[in-house]
Amino acid sequence: MILVLKRGTKESGISNVVANIEKEGLQTHVSKGTEVTIVGVVGDKSRLDIDRLKASPYIDRVLSVTESYKLANKKFHPEPTSFAVKGTQIGPDNLTVMAGPCAVESEEGLLTIARAVKEAGATMLRGGAYKPRTSPYSFQGLEEEGLKYLKTASEETGLATICEVTSAHAVEAAVKYVDMLQIGARNMQNFELLKEVGKAPLPVLLKRGMAATIDEWLNAAEYIMSEGNPHIALCERGIRTFETSTRNTLDLAAVLVLKEHTHLPVIVDPSHATGVRDFVKPLSLAAVACGADGLMIEVHNNPECALSDGPQSLTFEQFEETMRDLAPYIALSGREQKA
Amino acid sequence: MILVLKRGTKESGISNVVANIEKEGLQTHVSKGTEVTIVGVVGDKSRLDIDRLKASPYIDRVLSVTESYKLANKKFHPEPTSFAVKGTQIGPDNLTVMAGPCAVESEEGLLTIARAVKEAGATMLRGGAYKPRTSPYSFQGLEEEGLKYLKTASEETGLATICEVTSAHAVEAAVKYVDMLQIGARNMQNFELLKEVGKAPLPVLLKRGMAATIDEWLNAAEYIMSEGNPHIALCERGIRTFETSTRNTLDLAAVLVLKEHTHLPVIVDPSHATGVRDFVKPLSLAAVACGADGLMIEVHNNPECALSDGPQSLTFEQFEETMRDLAPYIALSGREQKA
Amino acid sequence: MILVLKRGTKESGISNVVANIEKEGLQTHVSKGTEVTIVGVVGDKSRLDIDRLKASPYIDRVLSVTESYKLANKKFHPEPTSFAVKGTQIGPDNLTVMAGPCAVESEEGLLTIARAVKEAGATMLRGGAYKPRTSPYSFQGLEEEGLKYLKTASEETGLATICEVTSAHAVEAAVKYVDMLQIGARNMQNFELLKEVGKAPLPVLLKRGMAATIDEWLNAAEYIMSEGNPHIALCERGIRTFETSTRNTLDLAAVLVLKEHTHLPVIVDPSHATGVRDFVKPLSLAAVACGADGLMIEVHNNPECALSDGPQSLTFEQFEETMRDLAPYIALSGREQKA
Amino acid sequence: MILVLKRGTKESGISNVVANIEKEGLQTHVSKGTEVTIVGVVGDKSRLDIDRLKASPYIDRVLSVTESYKLANKKFHPEPTSFAVKGTQIGPDNLTVMAGPCAVESEEGLLTIARAVKEAGATMLRGGAYKPRTSPYSFQGLEEEGLKYLKTASEETGLATICEVTSAHAVEAAVKYVDMLQIGARNMQNFELLKEVGKAPLPVLLKRGMAATIDEWLNAAEYIMSEGNPHIALCERGIRTFETSTRNTLDLAAVLVLKEHTHLPVIVDPSHATGVRDFVKPLSLAAVACGADGLMIEVHNNPECALSDGPQSLTFEQFEETMRDLAPYIALSGREQKA
Repeated sequence: MILVLKRGTKESGISNVVANIEKEGLQTHVSKGTEVTIVGVVGDKSRLDIDRLKASPYIDRVLSVTESYKLANKKFHPEPTSFAVKGTQIGPDNLTVMAGPCAVESEEGLLTIARAVKEAGATMLRGGAYKPRTSPYSFQGLEEEGLKYLKTASEETGLATICEVTSAHAVEAAVKYVDMLQIGARNMQNFELLKEVGKAPLPVLLKRGMAATIDEWLNAAEYIMSEGNPHIALCERGIRTFETSTRNTLDLAAVLVLKEHTHLPVIVDPSHATGVRDFVKPLSLAAVACGADGLMIEVHNNPECALSDGPQSLTFEQFEETMRDLAPYIALSGREQKA
Repeated sequence: MILVLKRGTKESGISNVVANIEKEGLQTHVSKGTEVTIVGVVGDKSRLDIDRLKASPYIDRVLSVTESYKLANKKFHPEPTSFAVKGTQIGPDNLTVMAGPCAVESEEGLLTIARAVKEAGATMLRGGAYKPRTSPYSFQGLEEEGLKYLKTASEETGLATICEVTSAHAVEAAVKYVDMLQIGARNMQNFELLKEVGKAPLPVLLKRGMAATIDEWLNAAEYIMSEGNPHIALCERGIRTFETSTRNTLDLAAVLVLKEHTHLPVIVDPSHATGVRDFVKPLSLAAVACGADGLMIEVHNNPECALSDGPQSLTFEQFEETMRDLAPYIALSGREQKA
Repeated sequence: MILVLKRGTKESGISNVVANIEKEGLQTHVSKGTEVTIVGVVGDKSRLDIDRLKASPYIDRVLSVTESYKLANKKFHPEPTSFAVKGTQIGPDNLTVMAGPCAVESEEGLLTIARAVKEAGATMLRGGAYKPRTSPYSFQGLEEEGLKYLKTASEETGLATICEVTSAHAVEAAVKYVDMLQIGARNMQNFELLKEVGKAPLPVLLKRGMAATIDEWLNAAEYIMSEGNPHIALCERGIRTFETSTRNTLDLAAVLVLKEHTHLPVIVDPSHATGVRDFVKPLSLAAVACGADGLMIEVHNNPECALSDGPQSLTFEQFEETMRDLAPYIALSGREQKA
Repeated sequence: MILVLKRGTKESGISNVVANIEKEGLQTHVSKGTEVTIVGVVGDKSRLDIDRLKASPYIDRVLSVTESYKLANKKFHPEPTSFAVKGTQIGPDNLTVMAGPCAVESEEGLLTIARAVKEAGATMLRGGAYKPRTSPYSFQGLEEEGLKYLKTASEETGLATICEVTSAHAVEAAVKYVDMLQIGARNMQNFELLKEVGKAPLPVLLKRGMAATIDEWLNAAEYIMSEGNPHIALCERGIRTFETSTRNTLDLAAVLVLKEHTHLPVIVDPSHATGVRDFVKPLSLAAVACGADGLMIEVHNNPECALSDGPQSLTFEQFEETMRDLAPYIALSGREQKA
């Protein structure tokens, strides 16, 4: 950690800063420049409170050179994380494809979709039973009933399942029926919920918040991991920017930034990122080309009637075509795609 | 609602769209232009699912001309909302000043601050007992212990109190000790939590999410109100933009946009918006000048030692100066400032 | 065009709006809803001034359903544009690779780079002679001297050349030496400069402004085209967002949005978009995978010594590897890559 | 300047970095931490090229602790800048109000507006003769004819005048007719144009670019000043963010950030910032309350007929009311408002 002192800080101010740090058992290196003095801090910074330092009348800026997340940090865990979800593996050798409807709407509908995405090559079935919707008057999901349908679909097709959870209550229900939990973008910094899934016996897919920096995102993963759950995958789903021609702006470079800082697998969701059906295939190819560990794709048997997020769902034919066209890109990435 | 059909949509497509809408009991007006056909929809649109419409192969764009929030909507409730919190009033005739530490740290410290802000003219005492922190390793708040200190401080000074809640569990505890609940920016779309505070017997301050549009924000208020709680105030606390010279970008025009669309009172928080102590006073004056119903200001007896968000807290002297300088602006706004 | 009237507009207001439009020779369709009245406008809207309409006391919103750009519009020119630059072709069958240093620094240096990128498979040589730099004290380019070196490099290697122009004066010089002109992000809405290159006898690469919407970008292309120059390629180079872990946020979905709205070719610049050398190859693969017509890549013989934008330049070895790894992706895209 | 070396950099790497800096005549201070080594650089950094440093294989981050702008920097020029424009003063004791139409449309119209704004208390007359418009088919201004009308209006009313310039050619014409030049948001980084107005014999109002950081903005001012023109005022006119309920997001905190870093006066333009007539007055009050040196306000005799930017123009009555309501705020700010 580097402290840049305010211009004109006198010897007494420098001594005050140094003393405050050293009394926590850390060491300092003072460099006096012609314009500013900087204080390098060496030792276990977890004992320091950065905000307290920032409030010092002598300190202008506090520059962190180490990240606040540890368990999610590649530096302390250089090997890429890989874990099994039911029969399938998420991690560096496999290309995971999670497909299915935005919301679970009926048992028969879900089964039809599950069979189709399995047939086309998906490795997991996605489907929402608890839907966070902007308006309280929109369809909010079938809740536990929807979870049961996911279980049935999994039993019939063998696909592992994933479902978003939005409360401690939903976590409690979901662990009985599905194979992986999802934290949605709106709850990425719902820290109480992160702690709940951190205690759950299932892997977690953590979506990026709409305006979350990568550092905040990895700290959110750290919340889950620090409760004892090491099986986290991250999901890039677009960020909110000034550009409105797509629903969000898919930040594919984030995949590369993440691969530098963390060992956790990274999934890309082109359906939510763009909200445009025709963009899902080309951005799926792009995501695989730049190193994603998997894709999350919305598929619906009748997109016109989907109760939620219809415009971005692929038809079965479009999903089959996507999977077919993806095959050589998966091969080029040195991965396999297997349930 | 206006549906813009895709270019080249034939008569059969137009009929399909019209039939789908009319079967829900709504009326349509078709306008065929030289380039596009538009379908105006008249009637109770709450029966329509916009996403389903967007998924139609004939519809290019769905333009809403009415808002999805009703209870928060000025159109259906033109009078400005006003409500009492303990002895003080939030609403159009009063200028509310909520002041206090970011986090409650000790009973004695909180009492000292409470006395000082009361003396300087604050109408409410703020203080966090449940702190949503980016890193799991940062100070997370004193929880129920902190709530008790708030109650003690309220009993001693007569100030009404407000505290952020981050879970159903925290709501349950807080209602026993404080006078108003706060939903923080990170939880603005934690819909389960919104429903919880919607059932609570206390007014709620709803902070704007970091990347929330005003429409999403008012829909979040609608979640709370639709559970039966009409006493909501909104708090602008800065949005996340490309500009990093302040922590967030304070969007004062949002106060004016809100005043056009909703009857709910609007509070401005310049402390969190900027993260810079020296900017709190001038932006407080500006907020009052452009019509805010109140301010939320961080004050600390020893900002250098604050366990959370130190750099933006005012000292007692700075807060007194702010209140003194605010007085003529409050007078110009035609309000009073009274506990 | 659709006009949404203000709530409560009376018959007299509707008549006023209708009369104002019809006197310009356009037709109207009025739809009276229970909540709002809408007026559809049919005919040649170029006679209307949208801002004037917006200023009417009766009009709430003006919704454009047609774009203001015509020459750049795919609707009126469905075939993809293709044009030759010296020996090479930019357009749908070819994958253009423009490579070279950010700034031209010396004749010998440029020749060394030109030979290396030619050898590795680049189809064009890029190099800046007029550098728009944030600070007036940074290196601003060799100007005409740099243009001469580009001409020499082109003569020796046969590569077509491209150079940014920043003023009418630079355009005048550049047309004597290079094969294609570039408008940089900071000048995307420098309309006087757009008109200048619109009169120039060379194709133009138009980079996207840092905060430009796609609609503004295509209108900027329209400025050039309306002066008579039809040979425009667009270059996505990242937009400015809240995320700072890369210099800009590469918006690959923009390639797809552009392909829907325009016939002009689209180039992607992963070097400027990210500012990170290691991200250039994977994002180049991704850009080709999602349909870009070409790439612009910074390459330098000694990145450590580059006078401008060093951190993002590839070494010769990295560029060769990028080109080698790109080959199967180019093949999958159904294009060829040829000088 | 502080260089943070990459983790694991060996002695030989540290020596390489130190040697490269010391050979430019600068001094270094090396601090070896347990995790990283940092190198403080002392001396005249203008000899160093930051990009070249960033390209070193041993350097992870380069942290500037000094700004690249000098002439605009408050550190080297602590007194607030003040300068005369015709009879009026821009600077700390005066509250400047520049008012008038977005575009000059006719001589008679401009005279009518000039008389009205003078009567209401404006100190300067604004009006565009060269309009940068998104579409090439929109009204582009009367050019030199418009400048003449401004001169006539100035002669009749005594008001100083300001007009945007968009090219070297426009600068040449404008200096013959008006009293102050304006650089618009789209040209904030049109460095060639900045150099032109830097050589002009008139003061310059430099608007903030739509996505410009404050540092970039001050560097743009530096471009003008480094050509010899010290009379610059900065104009905050809103930045582009995700929020679309106003045209831009007015960043009033930018006024405060600027006041910390520069001695140049700061003007606020609430008309362009919001694009909403009803928000102009309250945000004008807010701007004055938080320390702005002046306002730029659009006023039109018949906003419905304005050829450009109608929706945000005030009527004469609205402008008079704004000026009347502003008076006590100006008094509170300790300024006078005088032509």
